[in-house]
Amino acid sequence: MTSSCLTLSIPMKMRKSLTRKALVGAAIRMISDGRMDSATIDDIVGEADVAKGSFYKHFPNRDALKAHAHEAVRAELFAIISAISAEVEDPATYLTLGLLAAFRFGLENKITARVLLHMPADVVNPARADNAPILAMFHRGIQQGIFKLSNLDAGLVLLMGLTDLGLARLLEVQNEYLQLREVMQGICMALLRGLGVNNRRAERIVKDAMKKVIDSQAIVATIQNQHRNAL
Amino acid sequence: MTSSCLTLSIPMKMRKSLTRKALVGAAIRMISDGRMDSATIDDIVGEADVAKGSFYKHFPNRDALKAHAHEAVRAELFAIISAISAEVEDPATYLTLGLLAAFRFGLENKITARVLLHMPADVVNPARADNAPILAMFHRGIQQGIFKLSNLDAGLVLLMGLTDLGLARLLEVQNEYLQLREVMQGICMALLRGLGVNNRRAERIVKDAMKKVIDSQAIVATIQNQHRNAL
Repeated sequence: MTSSCLTLSIPMKMRKSLTRKALVGAAIRMISDGRMDSATIDDIVGEADVAKGSFYKHFPNRDALKAHAHEAVRAELFAIISAISAEVEDPATYLTLGLLAAFRFGLENKITARVLLHMPADVVNPARADNAPILAMFHRGIQQGIFKLSNLDAGLVLLMGLTDLGLARLLEVQNEYLQLREVMQGICMALLRGLGVNNRRAERIVKDAMKKVIDSQAIVATIQNQHRNAL
Repeated sequence: MTSSCLTLSIPMKMRKSLTRKALVGAAIRMISDGRMDSATIDDIVGEADVAKGSFYKHFPNRDALKAHAHEAVRAELFAIISAISAEVEDPATYLTLGLLAAFRFGLENKITARVLLHMPADVVNPARADNAPILAMFHRGIQQGIFKLSNLDAGLVLLMGLTDLGLARLLEVQNEYLQLREVMQGICMALLRGLGVNNRRAERIVKDAMKKVIDSQAIVATIQNQHRNAL
């Protein structure tokens, strides 16, 4: 395949999906920096650098694109959480790994992570389908006597509240690795204690989860690079 | 004072403050139902039912009004929290009363409460001036050995996360008093356990605080009335 006439040589179907990706990417950037709610379709296609007519081939209106972008980010995060906590049976460990995976994802993708800060209020609804694995872990923890959780709604509020506001705080802290680490550790301890896990067990779980998800060369390098670029 | 020619008889200064109140009230309604970010000045003066020119006597632009409305709601909530927790010395009791006061305020003022759900991310910044009384309580609890809190940021994230997402959940639950009560109680337990308060002490504090702030005839009547009106 030669690289000349690249645009013309891309088959229609692939071009359509590139346009769609460009629109979703533009939406994520615009939600992230607060431009989306007052954006016109012209603003969006301008940001995405695609033809105006192409917008309506993919989305009926701005709000549909916005909802799709939210779901896309959430789906990406859930895929990462699943990968990190796959085959973990202990409910306290599972939830801690998930929380730290969300924080790591946020620190490595700051623009995308800001979309998570504007999530719809129903993320704390126990009836929401994608909360099912979390509720299953709550039930298991209660059955095993690890969690003292009288109310599933309160458990979801605790987990989502720590994820959401925790992310907000971590995105504000200016890349000081030790401070970030301490905040993350404190939030994980608040989660496990809040769920009723005893202190010694919580400390051990958080220490191991920090090692697995956060203290790898990869994230240290990422944060340091961002810090260097910000200088 | 006669009630005829009311508009003309209101002194200029009072009329100005009425206009300002109408604008702030309109902003609260429009933030609450998501209309504010795409609103024009025409939309806002229309909602407030005031003359267009009067807008600029009070605010330079939409965002200034929006920020002012946020601060006004937050100030109102903080005044209620102060009234309810005045002279309370025990840090765990103080924070529980404050959390429940926020929930009660939210349930009694649903439109206004939705403004609290769209708070700026820096509410979890320990350097924010209005977080000072909360940090003072964290310090006192740590000194007294009641809280096991290694990190003040994590404490703020816990408190604000539970307030924010808890409010979101409570506003969604359809006014079933017993369910609301159970969710609130669960969230308070998550707060105190998350801060490291031991279980027996936490249960006693939450029970007393529920009695003081929630189980009064006033709030039961309010919720029941709302429920009746919703039918």
